[in-house]
This record gives sequence, C-alpha cells and structure tokens, in this order.
Amino acid sequence: MADKPSPALSGEPTTAPETKCKHEDCVEDPEDPASTGTGAGISSLEQPLLKRSTTLTASHLAIVGAKVSHIESLDYEIIENDLFKHDWRSRSNVEVLQYIFLKWAMAFLVGLLTGVIASLINLAIENISGLKMLHMVNLVRAKRYWAGFLYFAGVNFALTFGAAVLCVVFAPTAAGPGIPEIKAYLNGVDTPNMFGFPQLIVKIIGSIGAVSSGLDLGKEGPLVHIGACLANLLSQGGEGRWRLRWRWLRYFNNDRDRRDLITCGASSGVCAAFRAPVGGVLFALEEVATWWRSALLWRTFFSTATVVVVLRGFIEVCRNGRCGMFGEGGLILFDVSDVTVRYRAGDLLPVTLVGVLGGVLGALYNHALHKVLRLYNLINAKGRLAKLALALAVSLLTSAGLYLLPFAVPCTPCSAAGFAAGDDTCPTVGKSGNFKQFNCPAGHYNDLASLLHATNVDATRNIFSTATAGEFRLDSLLIFFAIYCVLGLVTFGIAVPSGLFLPIILMGSAYGRIAALVLRRFATIDHGLYAVLGAAALMSGSMRMTVSLCVIFLELTNNLLLLPITMFVLLIAKTVGDAFNPSIYEIILDLKGLPFLEPKPEQWMKDLAVGELAAAKPRAVTLQVVEKVSTVVAVLRSTAHNGFPVTDRPRPGVSELHGLVLRSHLVAVMKKRWFLPERRRTEEWEARERFSSTELAEKDGSIDGMEFSPEEMEMYVDLHPFTNTTPYTVVETMSVAKAVVLFRTCALRHMLIIPKFQGPEIQPIVGILTRQDLRAHNILGAFPHLANKKKRH
Amino acid sequence: MADKPSPALSGEPTTAPETKCKHEDCVEDPEDPASTGTGAGISSLEQPLLKRSTTLTASHLAIVGAKVSHIESLDYEIIENDLFKHDWRSRSNVEVLQYIFLKWAMAFLVGLLTGVIASLINLAIENISGLKMLHMVNLVRAKRYWAGFLYFAGVNFALTFGAAVLCVVFAPTAAGPGIPEIKAYLNGVDTPNMFGFPQLIVKIIGSIGAVSSGLDLGKEGPLVHIGACLANLLSQGGEGRWRLRWRWLRYFNNDRDRRDLITCGASSGVCAAFRAPVGGVLFALEEVATWWRSALLWRTFFSTATVVVVLRGFIEVCRNGRCGMFGEGGLILFDVSDVTVRYRAGDLLPVTLVGVLGGVLGALYNHALHKVLRLYNLINAKGRLAKLALALAVSLLTSAGLYLLPFAVPCTPCSAAGFAAGDDTCPTVGKSGNFKQFNCPAGHYNDLASLLHATNVDATRNIFSTATAGEFRLDSLLIFFAIYCVLGLVTFGIAVPSGLFLPIILMGSAYGRIAALVLRRFATIDHGLYAVLGAAALMSGSMRMTVSLCVIFLELTNNLLLLPITMFVLLIAKTVGDAFNPSIYEIILDLKGLPFLEPKPEQWMKDLAVGELAAAKPRAVTLQVVEKVSTVVAVLRSTAHNGFPVTDRPRPGVSELHGLVLRSHLVAVMKKRWFLPERRRTEEWEARERFSSTELAEKDGSIDGMEFSPEEMEMYVDLHPFTNTTPYTVVETMSVAKAVVLFRTCALRHMLIIPKFQGPEIQPIVGILTRQDLRAHNILGAFPHLANKKKRH
Repeated sequence: MADKPSPALSGEPTTAPETKCKHEDCVEDPEDPASTGTGAGISSLEQPLLKRSTTLTASHLAIVGAKVSHIESLDYEIIENDLFKHDWRSRSNVEVLQYIFLKWAMAFLVGLLTGVIASLINLAIENISGLKMLHMVNLVRAKRYWAGFLYFAGVNFALTFGAAVLCVVFAPTAAGPGIPEIKAYLNGVDTPNMFGFPQLIVKIIGSIGAVSSGLDLGKEGPLVHIGACLANLLSQGGEGRWRLRWRWLRYFNNDRDRRDLITCGASSGVCAAFRAPVGGVLFALEEVATWWRSALLWRTFFSTATVVVVLRGFIEVCRNGRCGMFGEGGLILFDVSDVTVRYRAGDLLPVTLVGVLGGVLGALYNHALHKVLRLYNLINAKGRLAKLALALAVSLLTSAGLYLLPFAVPCTPCSAAGFAAGDDTCPTVGKSGNFKQFNCPAGHYNDLASLLHATNVDATRNIFSTATAGEFRLDSLLIFFAIYCVLGLVTFGIAVPSGLFLPIILMGSAYGRIAALVLRRFATIDHGLYAVLGAAALMSGSMRMTVSLCVIFLELTNNLLLLPITMFVLLIAKTVGDAFNPSIYEIILDLKGLPFLEPKPEQWMKDLAVGELAAAKPRAVTLQVVEKVSTVVAVLRSTAHNGFPVTDRPRPGVSELHGLVLRSHLVAVMKKRWFLPERRRTEEWEARERFSSTELAEKDGSIDGMEFSPEEMEMYVDLHPFTNTTPYTVVETMSVAKAVVLFRTCALRHMLIIPKFQGPEIQPIVGILTRQDLRAHNILGAFPHLANKKKRH
Repeated sequence: MADKPSPALSGEPTTAPETKCKHEDCVEDPEDPASTGTGAGISSLEQPLLKRSTTLTASHLAIVGAKVSHIESLDYEIIENDLFKHDWRSRSNVEVLQYIFLKWAMAFLVGLLTGVIASLINLAIENISGLKMLHMVNLVRAKRYWAGFLYFAGVNFALTFGAAVLCVVFAPTAAGPGIPEIKAYLNGVDTPNMFGFPQLIVKIIGSIGAVSSGLDLGKEGPLVHIGACLANLLSQGGEGRWRLRWRWLRYFNNDRDRRDLITCGASSGVCAAFRAPVGGVLFALEEVATWWRSALLWRTFFSTATVVVVLRGFIEVCRNGRCGMFGEGGLILFDVSDVTVRYRAGDLLPVTLVGVLGGVLGALYNHALHKVLRLYNLINAKGRLAKLALALAVSLLTSAGLYLLPFAVPCTPCSAAGFAAGDDTCPTVGKSGNFKQFNCPAGHYNDLASLLHATNVDATRNIFSTATAGEFRLDSLLIFFAIYCVLGLVTFGIAVPSGLFLPIILMGSAYGRIAALVLRRFATIDHGLYAVLGAAALMSGSMRMTVSLCVIFLELTNNLLLLPITMFVLLIAKTVGDAFNPSIYEIILDLKGLPFLEPKPEQWMKDLAVGELAAAKPRAVTLQVVEKVSTVVAVLRSTAHNGFPVTDRPRPGVSELHGLVLRSHLVAVMKKRWFLPERRRTEEWEARERFSSTELAEKDGSIDGMEFSPEEMEMYVDLHPFTNTTPYTVVETMSVAKAVVLFRTCALRHMLIIPKFQGPEIQPIVGILTRQDLRAHNILGAFPHLANKKKRH
C-alpha cells in the first residue's frame, strides 16, 4: 500500500513524521537538512542538470469497472526474513514434492475447467442463437416482416438486458474483455474485485447472453478472463468466507505462484476461444505476461493441451447433432486448407497494400475506440440505469441494422455464385450455411443476410470460405463492413462481457474481401484467403501482436502455406500501426489509469537520478529495528504505505539499513500483541513460537478498530524477525532509466535508495521508490522541464 | 576478464595488493583485518550457519573445439559514466533513427543471407549425394557389388576427409553443432574464435561435405551456427583486420545489440533448416536465449519471415528440375496432412507408451552420448591426426553399415506393400522414392535399402510417409533403428560440422514405426503418424523442449489435427526424461565447462550469504578515484580482472563507493597516457576532449609491451570520467539464491557487495562477485558441507 495515496500525503500536511519525532528515538530530524541531505548535496554537484520543481505526487487510483478504485501492487520479491528463512530450511522433501505436484495439478485443473466451461458456453450460444435465427427466418419466409423484426429485436433486447443487469448489479468489473486487467495483474498491479467468484459467474452467463443477442462482440476476451478467474480462485482455494483452507494450498498463498497460474488461465482461455493451443501459449507470452520463464512455457503448454483435449472430447461427443446445433466445425474453426497457395511476384503489391491499409485502419479504429470509450466512461459513471440504458440502446441499434439492411440489397440467383458444386439449388435455409434465402424467391439467396443473420463465428466462416469469388456482391460487402465498423465501435464499451477479437476479425475479413474485389485484376490468390489476410492485417494494426497472431491464424485456418504471406502482412500492418498510436490494450490500460510498467524506459529518464526523484517525494517513513508500539501504531494509522525501511544504530557511529518491513507483517504483530516490556532484541525462537509463515503470508493491512492500552503503547516491538534484510537497493546517483529496468526485470514493489556517501552523520537510507514513482507520466508531473527533452528512442 | 584466472590469484601468492600498498594511498591494508572485515564480522553474528572452509577458486577455462581456452564474460550492463552519459545526451534524433533503421536492416540481412546460404547448401548436398547414390545403385544393379561398395565408401571417405581437414586445420571450433556455444553466448559467455569468418566458411563447406558423405548427422545445428556467425560478422562489420569501420556501425559495438542480432541469426538458422519460421522463433526463445523481450520477438520474426520468403523463392526457381536434384518437397519437408486423425479413447494407451518409452530412450541416449563425448574428448586432445583418424574411421563404419546391411534382409514384392496406388510396378529406382530395388529382382524392392540409401532427409520422408502400414518389415526397421543408434552415438563428436536434430529424428521415427508394428492391434492411427510421434518423443526425451518442438513438428508435417497428441507425447517424454538427466545441450555445456547460469538457483543457496562467498575469495583489488599511474600499471599487469571497484574519501570520516571501472577503459587511459602531474579531479570537458565513447567501446584488455617512464609512473590518473558510478550492488547478508536471481535477470557481469553496516572505519565495499563465483559447482568446491543439504526444489 505504499502505492495508496494516504490522505496525509496527497493533500494535507503530513502528520506521520511529526508523530514519530515526538519520541526520543526519532530517526530523521526534519530540522536538520544535513541528516539526509549531505549525500544528496554532494552528489548533486555531479548531477547539476536538473532542478526539482514540485513534489512528486502519485495517484494510486484507476478506473475499475466504471468506478474509480484504489489499486494495489503485487509483491514478487523473495522476502528474506528470519521467519521465512526458517520456513524454507524446515521444509521437508515431501512438502517440496507436494508443492510441485500441486503446481501441475492446478495447471491441469485450470485447463480442464476452462475447456469444459468454454464448451458449455459454445453449446448454449449456438443453441440459443440458432433457435432465434430459425424462428426469425420462418417468420420472414411467411412474409411477416414486422413480426420477424419485433421477434428478433425483442429476443436480442431480452438477452442483452439479462447480461447487462447481471453485469451492472453483481459484478461491474465483469464488463469488457478483462484482458487489460490481466495484463496489468501480470505486470504487478492488482485491481480489486477482478478475479473473484461473482466475476466468474457473471462472465459466463453474461457472455452467453451477450453473444447470443447478436451484439457485435466475441466470447474470446471473456474466455481469457474466465481462465484467469478460475486460476485465481483455484490458487486461493475459493473466495472470501467460503475459502477452502486446505493445508497444501498454503504454498500457493503468494503472488508469484498466483501469477504463474493466472498466466496458465489466460493462455487456456485463448486456446479455448480459438481452439489454438500453441496460439494460446504465445498470446500469453507476447501480449499478456510481463515476466516469463522457460518453466512457465512448459506449464502453460500443459494447460492448453488439456483444454484442447477437452474441446476435442466435446466435439466427438456432440457429433451427429447430439447437442442440438452445437458441434459443427471440428477442431479447426475456419478451415481454408483446401486452397493451395502459389506465390507470384505480382501478388506482392496487393498483399502489401492489404497490410498497409490494414495498419492504417487498425490505428484509426484504435483512435476512434479511444474517443468512444472516453464518452462511454462519462455515461457509465452516471449510474446503473445509465449503463443499462446504453447497453439496451446498442442492442436495439444492432437488431435494426442486422435485420433491416439485407432488404437493401438485391437477390442473387444461386447459380450465379459460381460455386463448385454446380447445382443451382441453394443449400438449406434453416441452418447456418453459406446461403440464406431470407426475403428472396426460391433459387435465389440474399448474400448480406447470409453474413448478417448468423452468429459471428458463422459469419466469419462464411466470409473466409474459399472458392467463392463471386458469391458476395461488392455493395453487400461494403454495407457489411460499414455496419460492423459502427457496431464494433459502439458495442465494446457497454456493460456486458465483450471481446475485441471477433469484431475486428469480422471487420477485417470484410475489408479483405472488398480489397480482393477491388484488386480483382491483380488477385491471383483466392478471395477467401484475402479475407483471412485482411482480418490478420486489421488485428495486427489494432492489437500489434505478431507471432501469436500468426500462430492463432495458422491454427484457425489450417493452411501452412499461407504462413509466409500472413507473416508479411502482420509485420507491415504492425509497423504502420505503430507509427500512429499504441496498441488497443495499451490505450485501454492508459484510459483506466492502470500503472503499467513499460518494458523500455524513456530516453529522458537517463538524465534524472533516483536521488532527485526521492527528494521530490515526501520523506520516507522509517522505523527503528526495535520500535515503540505507539510509533508503529501512529505510522500504521497515519500512512497507507505498504513497506517501511527499518534502520538501526548498533554502535555509536555505526548505522545500518536493516531492511524493509511490510505493513501486513506489522499488522500481524499488532494483532497478536507481541510486545516487549523493554527495548531488547529477541531470540529467533521467540518469534517462531508465535508466528507461522502461513500467517505472515496473509495480506491484511488494516488495524482499524483495534485499541491499545496506554501501557501497551509504551511497550516495544522487535522487528528483527519480520524485516526483509535484503531488499533491493540502488545508489542515489543511478539514473531513473537504469532503475526502471531493474525494477521491472526483477518485478519489484519497493526499491530502496541508499546514499552515495557513507559517514557518521549520513542516514543509511535516502528514500524509497514504488511503481507509481517510476511511471513516466508521474515523473513528468514533478519535473515538467523534462518533457521538452522528451523524444522517442 | 575478471573471469580469467590470473596466475597471481590461482597459485602463487598475490602480488597485486603488495604492489599497491607500497604507496601511501593504499586502499586496503592486508595487515588490518578490520579494514574490510568489520562489516563481515558483525553480519556473521547473524548468519552463523556456515563456516568458510577453503578459498573459492574459480576456473575460467572451457573446452572450445577440443582445446582448453580462456573464456570471457559479456557485458550487458548499462554503463553510466560521464563519457557515455555525455554521448547519450548529445545523440541527435537523426542518429537515433539511423540506429533503428540499422537494427532492422541487420535483421533483414541476417535472414536474407541465412536463407541464401541454406538454399545453396541444400542444392549442393542434394546434387552431390544424389549423384553418388545414382552411380552406386547402377553398379549394384549390374551386380558389381564390390565395386559399388568401394565406390560408395571411397566417395564418402573423400567427402569426410575434406570436411574434417577443413575443420581440423582452419577452424576447430566449427566442429559440432555450435548450439551450446550460442546458448552460452546468449547467457553471457563469450567463447573465443566461435563466430568469426573462418568458422562461417568452414561450417558451410564442411556441412556440405559431411552431410553428403552419408554420415549420420544433420545440417540443422550448423545452420543455426551459420546464422549466428553471419549476425556476429554483420554487427561488427567483418572480422579482425578487414573489419569495416563504417560510422553507423559504431552503435552496434556493444554486447547488447550483438546479442539481439545473434538471437535473430539463431532463429533464422532453425527456420532455414526446417522451413519453420514460427518454430525458429520459438526455438530461439525456448532453448537458446536467456533474456527475451517483446521487441526481440518481433525482430526475430522478421528475420525468419525473410528466410522463408527466400526459401520459397529458391523452390519456385528450382521447380521442374532446373537445379538438378534439388527443389522437390516444397516448403513443407515431411507432409503428412493427407491423413485425417480421429481420436479414440483406445489410442490413449499406445500413445502414452510411445511418450514414456521415448522419454526413457532420450535419457538413455543423453547418457550414452555423454560417455562417448568424454572418450572422444580424450582422443581429440591427442592432436590433429587423431581427430582426422577418428572422423575417417566413423566414415568407414557408416559406409559399411549403410551399404552392407540391406543385403541381410529379404526382398519384398511391390504388390505386397499394400500401397494406395494399387499398381504392382515399383516406382523409379533412380531417384529417391519410397522404393529402392537395390539387389532385388524386378517387381521387388529392398525396404531397408529404401531407408539407408537416401539422404537423411529423404529417409525421414520415407519413414514418415503415410498409408504405408505394410511397407516396412519389422526386422528391417529394427536393423535401421540399431544402426542409427550406434551411428548417432559415434558420429556426433567427430571433427566435422554436425547437428543433432536429424539423427534423433531418424532414430525416433524408426522407433515410432516399430512401436506401431508391435502395438498393431491397438494402433488405429496411421503408421506414418506413429513415426512422427516417435520422432517427437525422442526429440523431447533428449532435448527437453516443448512448445518449439511442437511448432517445428507442426510446420514439418502440416497436420494440425495431430497437434493435441503431439503435445501430449512431448509433455510425457520431457517429464520422463527430466526424471533421469538434464537435456543434451546442458550436458554438452557442462562437459565443455562453459559457465552457464541456470534459471533457478539451487535450494541450498538460500543458506549462504554473498558476504561469506566474498570472504572465500581473494580480496577485491580496489582503486582510488584519483590513482597513481604506478598502481594502475601494477594492477593491470598483476591481475586479469575485468572490473575494479573504485573508492573515494571525499572528506575525513566520509567514504564513498564511487563505482566500477572496466579494465578496457583503464587500458584506454594508459594507451593515451592521459596522466595528471598532480592529484586532482579533472573537469568533464578535459576527458571529453581526449576520449570518444566509440574508443571506449573497444575491448582491449592488455598493456603488454607498453613502457612507462619513472616520471609517468609518479603521475596520477583521474578515474572519474570512466567509472560506472551506478554498478549493481547487493548487501552482504543477501542470500546467494537471491543474488543469483538478480545477477541472471539483469544480465550482470560484476556485482558489488556492500557492507551491512556503515561507519567511519568500515570500507564501503566488501567484495565483488562474477559469474564464476555464483556457479553452484564452484561454490560447492569452497563450501563442501553445503553439498549434504543439496536437494532439488
């Protein structure tokens, strides 16, 4: 909670140091500028480039589900204090094996449950929307157009209403895709109420409702979030009051293991969404995860393998229509493997064009979506009714668009489509297929209806279908592209679970088909493949992924020969897109105010030393290694910091930075009232008798409601057993750029700054830095003149 | 060179501290144990678990191409000294753009050249060995069996002789695959003469000779090495004397950019070998690289995309036999996509069995190869003739085995093979195909000859071929498996460029076919797919990769539906193999003595503090910030350290750890004789006038042959402008486990240890740690009692 803004720090004058300094063992003397200033004074001779201007005030707030909430940092550091050290040493081989077994069992369970849930969601969506479409088509064939519209819009309205009410009332954080929050979590930022049980349930039911209602959104993002929720719940043994406190689970009560499992969950989700096991792993690696190790690669791979076996099993079971309308399509969603791709030099130009335009369109989409989301944030902040009304309005717009637009295009005779089979009877009109008769006479089909009156997955399958060059008319495709551009922008921000993948794929595939028609004279590649390339280009232009998208598209389409041009298009689109704006997830992260640490420090950070940064902050609140209870209580009550440097003076003239003590550990001591009547250092066994490492792993940061008697307040607390004696330290002259790299690569929460010079009157600590202090935005707020030097490297 | 054993440190009593301490400004007093011991003394009170036993002596030698050589560490740290800082600040936007452009141009060039070279190698191999086979087969058909053997063995002998002579005389380091050395380079260890121009040329020509000569080795490993050589040469602008000193290239004269480019080279190599662009990227990510960033993912992807486009282009050009016998096969090496895979619960057992046995066999192979390589090292160390003789002996053994064994199996009538086409005439005998007539009458074929009398790639293609359940006899397959087990073990260590992939794939595919025949009654999956699974299992059992192997096999075979079982088999085989021994590359790294830093610290490292480690080393040689020339000269001459801590005492009672100065920078100062007549601190411009950052980037570590006059020896050197003022520091009580994590994640070369306590008589530095000091093996040598606690976590 060093990252929470304490009221004392953000506005009013700080009270903490004053409280502390009433006691004789005051660590820092605010009257004496030399106490911490000496070191900084000398070193500033060497770094005279910058002057401090204002105080570095960091906001620790972010928008979580339309509400502004406090966010927390996660603690990935190996804490070396007496109690934890003792715990490692006493851990038996059996316990180590238990831990390893559990890690793998958890990864298996995450994969298994994600696979099962994804299959059930698919089952529900395909049956609900299939029945809806069937009935609607029957009404249209009976020429009851108005009844058809009312039925269609009514069902969609009801489904959206259900999804939105669930979202708004029970779990506001379940709206949207959840991927930015997962990305932030794996970067070290914990958003509250994000990965709990209500979110999981609302996400599952809400996804079914939202996707079935025909809204322009996918279940892909939500599935990733569902995987992450499952991982989080499994690792904690459930939620809140109902939490399972199984003995084995205690090994998992740390942020590191939870992070690993959530990575498994995220890749399982992608795998379940696209039936792409390798793509899932790579998506987690490229887009979601910040820290990665080989061991994790292997474990996520195990999870996705489990998912794909489960999916495979469901498909086998549901073969031959045993699960209603579910079960078609097999393991490969959009198979285009029947086309052999040959390369000619002449294809280079149109393919390049598709890539460049895809990059531009993707960047435009990001820009426009940013504006829309800003607007929606304002609307959503007005309250639950506003959120609900927005969602329902979008549903009505969607229904109207999808139902009415097919009337605008003429009918096409089935024989004109030039499809391979050669017979001129259109395929069945009841189920989803390439051809929908809709309002047309027999022997004709409405090509736009074929695309619009299907689930989003079926629409993609239709538009990707190969050897169908003449099947779709240019005007139909243009209408399709236009309506999905509009819907893709207005749908994403509403209060239902929604994913970005499928809307962009739909838009992109229409764009690819249009490009194929326009470039007809150059296009020797099949139009269905153009649709695939267009989708890839737009995805890359908006999401800026490369390898993972490439593999996902490979696994979606099963055409290995397409790989070289897909790579080519993806690289071009990403390069073009990057020239305009950041990726869509980065935009959303920024919009939500989540303090994401970028992999690369800004160039101007090389010109600022961490000592200057520390000087722009309120002075660090430090504790003595044997501290008065009253001081600890005052510090806990007056600040919201999560870690406190601990100093000591073992002999006159000798000072020591003993380490860093966490707030939660201080709170544990307070709760157990482990106080000493006199100022002394305890033996190791004394603390071990009272505290177990499992208790210390709990994150409880509040002593609200606790009362301490005056006698207790005069007693002492020995912090030796709790202090992490080896926190990561940097010297005050280190540049912020170098410190940021260290902070991010080692996944730190706190970084202590030590003085350049050592001497009898120099304090052993200069300051403490947290994630917020190292964010470019916050630093520029305190040092505005650096902005002039700002340039990209 | 802190990692080189100076003669002074390893055996004889050190002279450096004595030399230094003749002068009045002696930094450390060996007579006074308190000078650095104070801090350690107090802290050891808190860490009483371990006692120092012997001195930590670290060997900095490794076996490089059969010779024991000195190895160097690489420097990835951001060096913050005055001169470099000034360089950053003065870098213009144009220069930044130049740098970015060059980075991408280099990645493109690496891909382009790797693709071209790989295509040329393929062209040469397929034509040479194709002609050889053709002539041999003609002799056999004329029943001139002895002439055939002499011809076959003679050509193989000559080709092996050529490859081995090149290797032995010009570039001993070009023998073997080179992948372990690349892995070590990317981990921070530079082996000398590894990535130069002679290595590149020898590797190319040697590979062609060795593979054409029918030896049981592949061109895959060598191609990876070729890619890395290209990357290194491009980034340096060539080699040694002929080095191009283009102005733009100076941005690349640092270890970080070279590391990135070599990663691109390695993935290009894999891509070129298997025509697997995504597999190449993942191979680099999973197996080769130690540090990885998203930006690198994108750049390697760009390189491999270039490679695959080049390969594609060559294949298009060579279509219709325009390049002799090259050009068949297309982009997918071993296409098995014509088989539709259905899953039944009954397949689970045989597939699991294939995985488990594959893991066991892989581990066995690793074990046996380890023994053989040990033996070969002894032979190869005997001199050039011994090396040559060994290679030629293996060539004779191979020729005999390949030629004579097919006579041992009976002929099979073509119609009995039950192949799909139904016609009972065997396909052409001249070119490579599924059927070789060899010594059989017309209408019959020799199945073993079909496998043995082909290039390794064609053999794999034959054995992977689907719908050929009855084509190969069990006894032929057993003989094939046995001979390739023997050859795979004896061939790898000889002095020619050799790869491990193809031998293992051959062994594994035979094993898979045998498993299919043995498990015939359970095997509903095609025998060709069993061969694929067997190959994957053995690869995973030996190399212990998962995701990258999975993608490589996917890209090799183009059967997406095989993915779930491939994943399953890979995971089982890796798990089983890991239970026995480490991966083959780790075994080779260990055998060569390359100081590879493992990702995970050992469990017992938690019980040792870095301060204890430092105490077990000779005392660190420190310099004063303004130092006498004589002291610097003495230090440079008497030690081989690469970095020296610099301390200062700006005021009485105030001490300062000023930073770390690199040996190469000291040498640069000595060479320019930038000496001061009096002890003073210089202004920043004084150093800037004399030194450019480009000069300081040169790695020149020797002052041999330089003479200094007595007047010069009495002058002073100001180290302020050269000292990296912000080296990474850890406190002496930090556990070695935590320090190792920091050292590896931040890619450090030196890590300074600072004292726990600060006081007037305590030195600001406790010691310095390098890669060698943090290796488990070396620590256990100095603290043998820790070995008892050794257990795996």
